[in-house]
Amino acid sequence: MASLTKHWKEVVAEKRARQAATIPKEWILSNLPPKETLNVIDFPEKCGLLNAKEIDITNSEVDVLLDNMAKGIWSAVEVTTAFSKRAVIAHQLVNCLTEIFIERALLRAAELDEHLKKTGRILGLPISLKDQISIGGIESSMGYVSWVGKYAEKNSVLVDSLESSGAVLYVKTNIPQTLMWPETYNHVFGRTRNPYNRSLTSGGSSGGEGALIGVGSDIGGSIRIPSAFNGLYGLRPSYGRVPYAGCVNSLEGQDSVLSVLGPLANSLGAVKSFMKSVVSQKPWLKDSLAVRKPWDEEEYGLIEHGHGKNLCFGILWDDDVIAPHPPVRRGLEEAKQALIAAGHKVIDWKPLKHLEICKAVGAIWAAAAREDYLAATLPSGEPVISTMHLAIEDPDLAIGGESVPSFRPLTDGISAYELWQVQKLKRDLRQEYLDHWNATVELTGTGRPVDAILSPCAPYVAPPHGLNKNANYTTIWNGLDYTALVLPTGLSVDPVLDAKKPAHTFYNDLDKANYEFYDPETFKDAPISIQLIGKTLEEEAVIAMGEIVDSALKTKLAPSRL
Amino acid sequence: MASLTKHWKEVVAEKRARQAATIPKEWILSNLPPKETLNVIDFPEKCGLLNAKEIDITNSEVDVLLDNMAKGIWSAVEVTTAFSKRAVIAHQLVNCLTEIFIERALLRAAELDEHLKKTGRILGLPISLKDQISIGGIESSMGYVSWVGKYAEKNSVLVDSLESSGAVLYVKTNIPQTLMWPETYNHVFGRTRNPYNRSLTSGGSSGGEGALIGVGSDIGGSIRIPSAFNGLYGLRPSYGRVPYAGCVNSLEGQDSVLSVLGPLANSLGAVKSFMKSVVSQKPWLKDSLAVRKPWDEEEYGLIEHGHGKNLCFGILWDDDVIAPHPPVRRGLEEAKQALIAAGHKVIDWKPLKHLEICKAVGAIWAAAAREDYLAATLPSGEPVISTMHLAIEDPDLAIGGESVPSFRPLTDGISAYELWQVQKLKRDLRQEYLDHWNATVELTGTGRPVDAILSPCAPYVAPPHGLNKNANYTTIWNGLDYTALVLPTGLSVDPVLDAKKPAHTFYNDLDKANYEFYDPETFKDAPISIQLIGKTLEEEAVIAMGEIVDSALKTKLAPSRL
Repeated sequence: MASLTKHWKEVVAEKRARQAATIPKEWILSNLPPKETLNVIDFPEKCGLLNAKEIDITNSEVDVLLDNMAKGIWSAVEVTTAFSKRAVIAHQLVNCLTEIFIERALLRAAELDEHLKKTGRILGLPISLKDQISIGGIESSMGYVSWVGKYAEKNSVLVDSLESSGAVLYVKTNIPQTLMWPETYNHVFGRTRNPYNRSLTSGGSSGGEGALIGVGSDIGGSIRIPSAFNGLYGLRPSYGRVPYAGCVNSLEGQDSVLSVLGPLANSLGAVKSFMKSVVSQKPWLKDSLAVRKPWDEEEYGLIEHGHGKNLCFGILWDDDVIAPHPPVRRGLEEAKQALIAAGHKVIDWKPLKHLEICKAVGAIWAAAAREDYLAATLPSGEPVISTMHLAIEDPDLAIGGESVPSFRPLTDGISAYELWQVQKLKRDLRQEYLDHWNATVELTGTGRPVDAILSPCAPYVAPPHGLNKNANYTTIWNGLDYTALVLPTGLSVDPVLDAKKPAHTFYNDLDKANYEFYDPETFKDAPISIQLIGKTLEEEAVIAMGEIVDSALKTKLAPSRL
Repeated sequence: MASLTKHWKEVVAEKRARQAATIPKEWILSNLPPKETLNVIDFPEKCGLLNAKEIDITNSEVDVLLDNMAKGIWSAVEVTTAFSKRAVIAHQLVNCLTEIFIERALLRAAELDEHLKKTGRILGLPISLKDQISIGGIESSMGYVSWVGKYAEKNSVLVDSLESSGAVLYVKTNIPQTLMWPETYNHVFGRTRNPYNRSLTSGGSSGGEGALIGVGSDIGGSIRIPSAFNGLYGLRPSYGRVPYAGCVNSLEGQDSVLSVLGPLANSLGAVKSFMKSVVSQKPWLKDSLAVRKPWDEEEYGLIEHGHGKNLCFGILWDDDVIAPHPPVRRGLEEAKQALIAAGHKVIDWKPLKHLEICKAVGAIWAAAAREDYLAATLPSGEPVISTMHLAIEDPDLAIGGESVPSFRPLTDGISAYELWQVQKLKRDLRQEYLDHWNATVELTGTGRPVDAILSPCAPYVAPPHGLNKNANYTTIWNGLDYTALVLPTGLSVDPVLDAKKPAHTFYNDLDKANYEFYDPETFKDAPISIQLIGKTLEEEAVIAMGEIVDSALKTKLAPSRL
C-alpha cells in the first residue's frame, strides 16, 4: 500500500517510474509520431520494431494462430514476443497499459513450448487483462493512488481458468478512476487515447483493451463502449456467466446491477473461443457466484431461433432520449440492408421506458458511490475525478478560464430502504421489458418474438475526451441483464455520408446538446459499430446471431467481385 | 384494500366471516376432537367425511394418482373433491388455510375431465399455494390487515405454468405476518398448529402447507422448516430456478439473499415432478429473474457424482452455535447407518463460520425490515408482531403476568453503504465456503469433494409455539444459495430413545437455553427430519441424491422381512 506519509503525486511519480522500467529498453521508440498526428492505427506495422512475421502473428485470427502454433511454424515465445512488442508500441502511442510483465510472460511461453514438445497440446495464446483482474504477484491498484503497491496474493478464478487453458498473460490495461466512467483516465496511469484519432476517447472503463483478446468488465457499457469506439468485437455476458471471484472492484457489495467480465477481441471467433473455453471449465465449481450453465451447443445452433433461418431482428434507432449522430444511424442502416439481403427480416424496435430503467440503474449505483469512492481516495488525498476533460491534465486547456465542467456530481448516499425501493422498481421494469419483448410475437411473422435487437452502442461514435457523458445505450442492457455484443461494421466516419442533419425536435436539453456538438470533422476516422442484444444468459445464441450479422455485413461491404 | 376508517380488528372479523363462508357447509364437522387432543394426524381419515375412495386418493403418490386418472378410474372432479375435503378437515383441526375457492376448482376440474375425454391428456392434480402466490381474481393479503381485499389482477408466472401443466388450484395456505418468521401466525388468519401435536408449531413461514403438493417460499428456511416439523419432503431451490414473478412478498427490492419458491410434498416423487414440470416449461421466457437452465437429465443421473455409486456424504452434526436436541441427532445417525449399509461413505462435515454467515444474512434482512413492515402495518394500525407465544392470542397464557417476550427487536435501518459492506462480507464468506467444500477432496477418498451435506433442519424437532427462535440450520444455506432438501426419516420423537442427555459445555447462552428447554414429553410424536444440501443450481443432483438417502432410510427402517 502507498505510504500515507507521501504526497499522492509523489506516489504517482514513483509508480510511473516503476512502470517505465518494465518496458524493455530496446522497444522504446524514438520515431514516435508527433502529438498532432491523430490517426496512429497504422503506426505499429510501420514503426520498424515488428518484423514481417510479428506483423503476421499479431494480425492473425485465433484459429490461424493456434493452427500455426500446432504446426510448429510459430512458437509460444515468438507469439508472446510479437504481442508484447505490439502492446508496448500501442502503449507509447495511446497509453493503454498499467502493469507490464513481459519477462514473466516469456518464461511461461518457453515452458509452454516445452510442454507442446512433450504433450502435443497447443498452448500459449497471449491475453491482456483489465487492471482489476488479479494475477498472483502482480499489482492490482485499479488506478487508485492508495492502492498502489497492493500486490494480488493469488490469481482470480478467471486467471486460473485462462492459464489452465494455456493463456499467456503479459500486460494489464488501463481504466478510469472508480471504474464508473465511460472514458479512461486516472491519476496513477493517466489517459488512454483512441488510436484511430487521438483527440477522441478510447471509451471506458475497459479503455486500455484492444489486443487480440483482452478481458474487460462491464457494469454499464465498460466492455462495449471501448469495443465500439476502437472497432473491436466485445461481449457483455450475463451476470455470473464468466467467473469474477478474486478480482478487485469498486462499488463492492452492490448486489443488484452486477459488473461482469467478458472479452474484447479483433474477431468474433476470438469472442466465441474465449466464452466456450471459460464456460467449459465449469467456473461454478470454483466461483460461488458463477452460474451453473454449461456451454450449450444447441443454443449456439439457434434451436430457439428457427435454427438461424429467417430471423427477425428489431432495430432500436433511437431511445427517445438522445437521438444518435448520423454515423451511428448509418451503421444500423447498413446492418439492416445487409440482413435483408441475407434473407432475414428487420422491423423497428420500440423502446420501452429506457430513461426510467437507466435512471433506476444510476440510482442504484449512486446509492453509496460517494462513500465508496471516498474510502479509496481519502487515504492518499487524491481527489475524486469529476470530469474527463483534457483540462484536468493541462489547465491551459480549460475553456476560457472556466473551471472544468463536472459530469458526476457526487450525491449523498441513501438509506437501505430507499435502495430497496429503487431495486424493486428496476425489478418490475425488467419484467415489463420482457413482456414487451414477448409481445413482438405479433409483429414478426416468424411465430417467435424478435430474435435479437440491433441498437446503437452510444449516441455517437468515439467522442472527444471529456464528452462521453451518456452511456444509456449500453446501460439499459445491464439493467435488464441482457446479453449484448458489439460488432464493428467495417465502416468509419465519412464527412460526406455522415453530414450533419437538420435539427429535429429535441427530446430534452441533453438531446439538443448532443445534436449541437456533432460535426463530422471532429469524429474523423472513428469506427462505426453496432450492438446486438439477446436475452439473459443467451450468450451462445447471441454469438451465433452475431456471426450472422457479421457475415452479412462483410458480404455487403466487400469490394464487388465482378 | 381495507378501508382506513375501520378498526383493524373489524377488518379481521369481516375477513374471517368471509373466509368461513367459503367452506362448504356440509364439510363443517361437528365431531371435531377437543382442543386437548394434541395428535390429530389420523383424524381426517376417521372423521367420516372422506369415503374410502377419497382416503385412497389423498394417500396416493403422484404417479399412482396420474395413472388412475389416465385409466379413468378417478376423475379430476373426484380427485379435486377428495383433496378439497381433506384440506378443509385439516383446516378445522390446525387452521392452515387462507383463501378457499373450491367451487372454482371443481369447475376447472370438470373442464379438465372433458379435456381428457377429447385429447387423452391427463390433467387435474390439485396443488395448494402459499398465500403470497398470486392467482388472478383471488385475494393476496399475505396476512396483513391493510392488504385484505387486495385481489390479484392476474396470475403469477408460476400459476400460469402450473395451470398449463394441468394443476387444479383450490386453496391458499397460511403464513406469519411479514413472512419473516419460522412459525405461522398473523392477525388476519390466526395461528396454524402442528397436526402431530397441536401444542407444537407447524413452523413457518410456509406453515400452512402440507397437502399432496403445495408450493411455499423460502428465504431462510420457510419451506424446509414446515416440511421438517410436519414430516414432509420440501425443496429449497436456488435463486431463480422457480419463477417468482407476480407474487406478493415482504422485503421487496432486497436483491442479495433472495426468497425462492419450491415444493412441499408427501413424496420425493412429487418434489421431482414439480421441479421437472416447472423447469421444463422454460420459466426464463416469462420471468425476467428466472435462470435459463433447462432440466438436466445428466445432472439428475449424477454424472458429476460418480453416477450415484459410492457417494461420500458429509454430516454436519452441530454448527458450533447451538447443539441439536437428541431426536435431531438420532435422525442423522439413522441416516448415516442407512447410507453406510447402502454402500456409501459418510464423513463428518466441519462447519465453517456458520454464525458469521447467518449474522450477515440477518443484517441484510434487517437493513430496512422495520420500514418495510411498518409500510404494511401502519395503514391499518395493526401492530407488528414480535413474538409467536400463545399469549399474543390469549393474554391469560402470559407467563406469570409478564409481558410477552419479544423475539424480534425491530432495529433501525442502515445506510445503503453499510448494507453494501455486509453484502460484500457475505459474498466473501460464500466464496470461502465453496473453497472449504472443494478442499474436502482430500478427505473423501472418492476423488471428488463431498457429494452432499447432511444436516439438521433445526436444533430441535417442532417446538412449542413461540419457541422457534433459531433458523440458522436452514438460513446458512440460503446465504450460500445452496440447494437444500428436507426429508422425513420416518421416525418421530421417542421418550426412551430420545432421553435428555447430560449437559455439554455450552457454546453460548442460546445453546444453554436450547439445551434446557428439551424434554422428550414436550415433543411427543413430532416427526424427525434431515436436510440434504448440494451446491448452487444443483436441484437435479440433490433430488437424485435425496432418492438415494430416502431409499436407504426406508430399507433400513422397514420392518424385518424374516
